[in-house]
Amino acid sequence: MVALQEILLLVDLDNDTSVPVFQVCEWHSPEQLKKLLDLELRDGGEAESEILQRCRDAIRYSVKTSHPRFFNQLYAGMEPYSMVASFIAEAVKTNLYTYEVAPVFTLMEDAVLRKMIKVIGWEEGGDGIFNPGGSLSNMYAVNLARYRYCPDFKEVGMFSAPRLVILTSQECHYSISKGAALMGIGTKNVYTVPTDERGRMIPSALEEKIMLAKSEGAVPFMVNATAGTTVLGAFDPIDEIADICEKHNLWLHVDACWGGAAIMSKKHKHLLKGIHRVDSVAWNPHKMLMASLQCSAFLVRDKTSLLQHCHSARASYLFQQDKFYDVSYDTGDKSVQCSRKPDAFKFWLMWKALGSRELEQRVDRALAMARYLAEEIKKREGFRLVLEPEYANVCFWYLPPSMRNLPESPELWKKLHTVAPVVKQRMMKKGSMMVGYQPLGEKANFFRMVVISPQVSRQDLDFVLNEIHNLGKDL
Amino acid sequence: MVALQEILLLVDLDNDTSVPVFQVCEWHSPEQLKKLLDLELRDGGEAESEILQRCRDAIRYSVKTSHPRFFNQLYAGMEPYSMVASFIAEAVKTNLYTYEVAPVFTLMEDAVLRKMIKVIGWEEGGDGIFNPGGSLSNMYAVNLARYRYCPDFKEVGMFSAPRLVILTSQECHYSISKGAALMGIGTKNVYTVPTDERGRMIPSALEEKIMLAKSEGAVPFMVNATAGTTVLGAFDPIDEIADICEKHNLWLHVDACWGGAAIMSKKHKHLLKGIHRVDSVAWNPHKMLMASLQCSAFLVRDKTSLLQHCHSARASYLFQQDKFYDVSYDTGDKSVQCSRKPDAFKFWLMWKALGSRELEQRVDRALAMARYLAEEIKKREGFRLVLEPEYANVCFWYLPPSMRNLPESPELWKKLHTVAPVVKQRMMKKGSMMVGYQPLGEKANFFRMVVISPQVSRQDLDFVLNEIHNLGKDL
Repeated sequence: MVALQEILLLVDLDNDTSVPVFQVCEWHSPEQLKKLLDLELRDGGEAESEILQRCRDAIRYSVKTSHPRFFNQLYAGMEPYSMVASFIAEAVKTNLYTYEVAPVFTLMEDAVLRKMIKVIGWEEGGDGIFNPGGSLSNMYAVNLARYRYCPDFKEVGMFSAPRLVILTSQECHYSISKGAALMGIGTKNVYTVPTDERGRMIPSALEEKIMLAKSEGAVPFMVNATAGTTVLGAFDPIDEIADICEKHNLWLHVDACWGGAAIMSKKHKHLLKGIHRVDSVAWNPHKMLMASLQCSAFLVRDKTSLLQHCHSARASYLFQQDKFYDVSYDTGDKSVQCSRKPDAFKFWLMWKALGSRELEQRVDRALAMARYLAEEIKKREGFRLVLEPEYANVCFWYLPPSMRNLPESPELWKKLHTVAPVVKQRMMKKGSMMVGYQPLGEKANFFRMVVISPQVSRQDLDFVLNEIHNLGKDL
Repeated sequence: MVALQEILLLVDLDNDTSVPVFQVCEWHSPEQLKKLLDLELRDGGEAESEILQRCRDAIRYSVKTSHPRFFNQLYAGMEPYSMVASFIAEAVKTNLYTYEVAPVFTLMEDAVLRKMIKVIGWEEGGDGIFNPGGSLSNMYAVNLARYRYCPDFKEVGMFSAPRLVILTSQECHYSISKGAALMGIGTKNVYTVPTDERGRMIPSALEEKIMLAKSEGAVPFMVNATAGTTVLGAFDPIDEIADICEKHNLWLHVDACWGGAAIMSKKHKHLLKGIHRVDSVAWNPHKMLMASLQCSAFLVRDKTSLLQHCHSARASYLFQQDKFYDVSYDTGDKSVQCSRKPDAFKFWLMWKALGSRELEQRVDRALAMARYLAEEIKKREGFRLVLEPEYANVCFWYLPPSMRNLPESPELWKKLHTVAPVVKQRMMKKGSMMVGYQPLGEKANFFRMVVISPQVSRQDLDFVLNEIHNLGKDL
């Protein structure tokens, strides 16, 4: 068999990545890469030396997401303790159905969830579960909110129900819509609430939308507030939204998948002010806190076993009630999944190794670096911030010299819209870095830099700005 | 940082596991284990030596699911190539949103899906996606079937829809109910069809239930056939069910999560006769084919991009349409997830290394071993088969000597019902093996042995029967 050690040497995890010598990516078009990889699966197997080459190729042509110049997604870098945990979890190979088959990970999940609940500030405790991604966590929130509104839906479906409405900001993650579609609520029954100039939900507009839905004879049952929007990194004002939800008896969920990490920091937790009042929270430690993919928690303040009641199917082959131990530790029936990976372990081990204080320092450091980047952008000719960052998202335009003296006009923005895609293409073909871009509403394509990893230095950030200029100055 | 090599030595992956020297598990009650693990997460971190001890403990107290005497779930054993792939996937750390960020794994997923589609026999091709578990794959089927019945539900929800009905056998996996609850259809609108004495759906009874639903004014829209039921390993007669579905214009999904592997074998593929006619299939290579957890494919025969239409949300920050490459390779929007792991790679690498022929031989070997076990059970006093196995599930009762001469009576079965839980408790406390048990309908608790791994020998199977007798003979 292929020696594991050999693979690990290839992956080169133990190397010092502070000196980037490799490219972030080695670009090939899909058609080229298909030829390089020899993807076909055949009747006969291949020799070990060939398989080792397949492994080398898989690594070589994959994007180096742990590279300090990878800024393309809301995850980056490599957290070694978490990665060790993920390797152990793979090797131990189990599912979190029952205590019987996953005793260690069942208890670790419980410990991590309790700690997260404590950090959030739910003094009377709560419940929770790790899910394969924040989208599913957000869907859990929708399902629990719906179940609280009417538990009968679980059995009879929504065919004779009044039209249910979810309220969320126009900047929210698309999983709210995906969830509404999947769950039979419908994307049109997701009412989007306008945001202010910084991307935050406007509470008065929320209340107007609630009244609108009611005036239509619909039933608003849930508000989704976002703590750290995907593009701008905006934080909806939870406290004010909680007031409105209390008044109208609505479930308040906070999608803190990206921004939840701020709560680890004394300096930045004000961004989540009021989170102790909400009904549920989605928080992905695999984003800002750098746990290995995936590591996504759903947390609920309820203490009446709502997760269990809402999702249970009581399969008799798995959740036997005549076991010899306390079957309340068989937590699998809280999930909509059957097989479920022990993702909590990846967060538990790194938290154990680093302690809360180091997690706090990492958040503070990342946000300080984002601040540094924003200040650099303000200093440099040709760069323009989309808005002052509140969190780790630094959004900006790059204007090539040819556009710098053009008057502000739709024509300028139309030209500018084409810049980021070309710069992106060039950076990927060169492999020097990866930064995302997107339009937003009426705004032309802009870059979104996200600073996460402690392996990122000021030099890396300077490099990004210089490189964008080098790649785009002729446009 | 903790040396990866050290961890791997602990996990002992390279050892010859054909000679089991370790226990399958080291049982501790939740309260005891909490003390042993020191789960609390603190402000300060721990030294590396302590973290290494935490890793050792996590491994030590976890169940050894790769042990040749672990028969507790529908997965077992260790497939070294697949595990190498899972380590690489962890280290490369990426999500399958886009070609841009996951070029290699995007193409590998496509290659594996195409190959699986070919094996199934959909001559005109199809589409598919890997999901975190078969439950979600089954839910994808429900969602696509519903979308085909009425695409408007995606936008407007099901509030003014007629009552929709899913039909499935009474032996189906509980994810069908979980899905119906989550998706707003309701568990009561899952009509269960009776099964024959071998646990297979009775086609005439299916048609009766369809007519019943229609007579109630409801709309049957989908039939779920199970290929390899969880407990008995039964295969619903797909061909006959397909006739009925064609007649009534119903979506036919096959939950082949467990039994799909039979299609790799010329000898056993008859179990899935008719699968080339169905609309969708869920098939988990992480079960019988031993890919690392999780590895679950959803396959759909449709060629009109139904997956995309049904699930897409077109997030502009991720699925930009002005990219410089063919964005049809950005497959992430087919998913209800956002973050999604490259699970296909775990199957691709092992298939590449072993070839289809070796996969076939493994299936044949596992089913031959199950047959051996069934014959042994028939030979041995005190053991009684629940039914002749069709697949790898061998279900049987053990009667301790004190019960062997009792007349067949409700009292005997009541007594027998208590035997398996006690034997299970004793095997776990001893750590000698792990075998599942459950009741089924009117049937008293029985053992379900599942033979999967090529590391399992006849000696291991003999051991299981001897050990059950040793542990239960005094009852």
